[in-house]
Amino acid sequence: MKYSELTKEEINELYEKELRQYKKLQANKASLDMSRGKPSKEQLDMVEGIFDVLNGQSSFVLENGADARNYGGLDGIPELRRLFGQLFDVNEFKVLLGDSSSLRFMYDLVQQGMQFGIDGELPWNKLQTVKFICLVPGYDRHFAICEHFGIQMIAVPFKANGDVDIDIIEGLVESDNSIKGIWCVPKYSNPTGVTYGNDVVERLAKMKAPKDFRIFWDNAYAVHGIYGDTPLKNIMAECEKAGNPDRAYVFASTSKITMAGAGVGVFISSEKNLNEYKSHMQYATIGPNKVNQLMHFRYLKSVENIYKLMNKQGDLLRPKFDCVFKVLDAEFENGEIVKWTKPVGGYFISLDILKGSAKEVVDLCAKAGVKLTGAGATYPLKSDDKDRNIRLAPSFPPVEELEEAMQVLVCAVKLSALGRMK
Amino acid sequence: MKYSELTKEEINELYEKELRQYKKLQANKASLDMSRGKPSKEQLDMVEGIFDVLNGQSSFVLENGADARNYGGLDGIPELRRLFGQLFDVNEFKVLLGDSSSLRFMYDLVQQGMQFGIDGELPWNKLQTVKFICLVPGYDRHFAICEHFGIQMIAVPFKANGDVDIDIIEGLVESDNSIKGIWCVPKYSNPTGVTYGNDVVERLAKMKAPKDFRIFWDNAYAVHGIYGDTPLKNIMAECEKAGNPDRAYVFASTSKITMAGAGVGVFISSEKNLNEYKSHMQYATIGPNKVNQLMHFRYLKSVENIYKLMNKQGDLLRPKFDCVFKVLDAEFENGEIVKWTKPVGGYFISLDILKGSAKEVVDLCAKAGVKLTGAGATYPLKSDDKDRNIRLAPSFPPVEELEEAMQVLVCAVKLSALGRMK
Repeated sequence: MKYSELTKEEINELYEKELRQYKKLQANKASLDMSRGKPSKEQLDMVEGIFDVLNGQSSFVLENGADARNYGGLDGIPELRRLFGQLFDVNEFKVLLGDSSSLRFMYDLVQQGMQFGIDGELPWNKLQTVKFICLVPGYDRHFAICEHFGIQMIAVPFKANGDVDIDIIEGLVESDNSIKGIWCVPKYSNPTGVTYGNDVVERLAKMKAPKDFRIFWDNAYAVHGIYGDTPLKNIMAECEKAGNPDRAYVFASTSKITMAGAGVGVFISSEKNLNEYKSHMQYATIGPNKVNQLMHFRYLKSVENIYKLMNKQGDLLRPKFDCVFKVLDAEFENGEIVKWTKPVGGYFISLDILKGSAKEVVDLCAKAGVKLTGAGATYPLKSDDKDRNIRLAPSFPPVEELEEAMQVLVCAVKLSALGRMK
Repeated sequence: MKYSELTKEEINELYEKELRQYKKLQANKASLDMSRGKPSKEQLDMVEGIFDVLNGQSSFVLENGADARNYGGLDGIPELRRLFGQLFDVNEFKVLLGDSSSLRFMYDLVQQGMQFGIDGELPWNKLQTVKFICLVPGYDRHFAICEHFGIQMIAVPFKANGDVDIDIIEGLVESDNSIKGIWCVPKYSNPTGVTYGNDVVERLAKMKAPKDFRIFWDNAYAVHGIYGDTPLKNIMAECEKAGNPDRAYVFASTSKITMAGAGVGVFISSEKNLNEYKSHMQYATIGPNKVNQLMHFRYLKSVENIYKLMNKQGDLLRPKFDCVFKVLDAEFENGEIVKWTKPVGGYFISLDILKGSAKEVVDLCAKAGVKLTGAGATYPLKSDDKDRNIRLAPSFPPVEELEEAMQVLVCAVKLSALGRMK
């Protein structure tokens, strides 16, 4: 069935059918949440072993001789820096570890740019205009940081095939000195799931840009393949090769490897950039929680072991993604009244529905007890000018709940689309 | 023996004797550290039980139903907020919990004042001049925050009897709108050990001050009595009583209750102030490490239990303070060539030696293998204009090492003083 080939009568008939279905679903009084990329309880239960690596009998002496329980060490513990250095194929001295939130690094670096400036350039607070490039749809928390600091956002949509529009980005950055940053989720991007191609990584590293321009490279899903692993080019190496060794701020965390609220945040950059970060941060803290880092090191052990753990998580997430894809495949032709991405990793699936209907669909779902990410959330200032993008986050609910939620979503999308065709 | 009654010959003789002693001590090639208020290994070992409260079998469900391991909750976990509310005699909704560093709260609040302003007032970045009052001698990390942000510091010395000079403070704040803050360590103050009197607390709460003036009340040693407990008036209650409910930012942490690098930071203020803090912080993090907070709650249990733990720590610290006092009492008359404070809690002892000799004494100690806090560190811009204050931190070394270090210190003080009398 193609919606475009239906007669007026058929559309009306279908609409009435979906309306009845919607009322039935509403009567179920569901309470389901697909709004945020949260790990499920089962996934968190998988890491129970992490609490067995420390106890009263443990040694807390780090390999540098320091006591993990005492003050000191702004960089994070050396053993875990080395492990992340191996994981991300960078020298361990380019790795800095924090507390649980990698978002905190991003916020602090933007705040430092505002207050103190970067690499000897004027503080952004002193500039008339500061702009960041935001690929859309993208991660709402990135955009919210810019909004909070009054940084102008230039939305650059992904290309029709889902790839990064590097021509546009290059053109913008090379012609406008007030562009000081770009937000990137380069692997299994939030929410479209795209992984940046080699050409994109190389050109981001190479393009002409102000000295204090930084790529905020939020590699949140670096080891989060669900259907195998997709390689991503090493931005640090590319920046060095291109003669721009200080251009990239790389972020990662164990939030979706161990515990979402109690992991270890990772900040990777040139030693010069790490020193600049620390030149401010040394006044804010004596150091992050080293006991938590030690616990993580002893639990994660090695790169191989991390992939082993992530494969187990993949096994847990795959049926959830399968479920979403199966329902969408069964109910729609991809690209007719709804177009969806098919991520092979990460935490999200992105839907584009008919222009002007995302708010309506999110609202219909809410009224039937299914909470989705707010319409527009994936755009700067929460403003999706086409009002068409919906982000699905299938990681948290159990499969049975997902199936129920997807029924509601499908019905809402159809109802909304048919309502417009009537 | 009074140094002031010695003849020239006696002074020369004593000087030669101390010089010989110094050379002997130097030959020992000691390596001792009295520079920072760090807990000792024994003290950290006391809290080993903290790691037994969480394991694979534990429940991670908080009393609000949230999973401690998952995302969410900018305020900290309710059970631990309540416990600190009880400890500090404030409503639990006025308590916010962070990661390990309470310094981080202080830095962030100053940065928020600079960037966004406080309570609707102009951002401090937009003012010609911003000043903070710094009681001297005081805590170097407080002063370093001001220095980093270009905030002018007005040094207000304690009175000769050790008390806070509240007349001067009141006079300054009431006459100068550009004074936006004051740093206070109100109990067992770093480094003099003084606890602020009731009158001081009341007048700080009551005095006329700008709407965005804040008392940075770093109650780092709230339960850290060594020779009994000294009561401190509740600044929050006093501020409320005085009609200035938003004036105080109160800080505490478990750094010196559980683990120095892996504790829980505490920020207490009016709900309005906490909301303002969160209105910025919500962009920086989804929340602090709740697992660490849960571990602390299960380990600390109750106010009574906290005092029980702190009594055990007091038993460990007392011999160290005793040792310093014993040596000083045996070697000097308090107030002649060296004047020292006699704190009954906290982590420090403050020495005032002859004007212009602190740098020399710290240097002499260093050359004999004893590391002290840098001379001047307890003053804004590290500048002790009288070059006389030395901060002793006896918590970290074992008593035997302390005895050795004190020998060096005594010798250095005498050598320096006699050299000046020659």
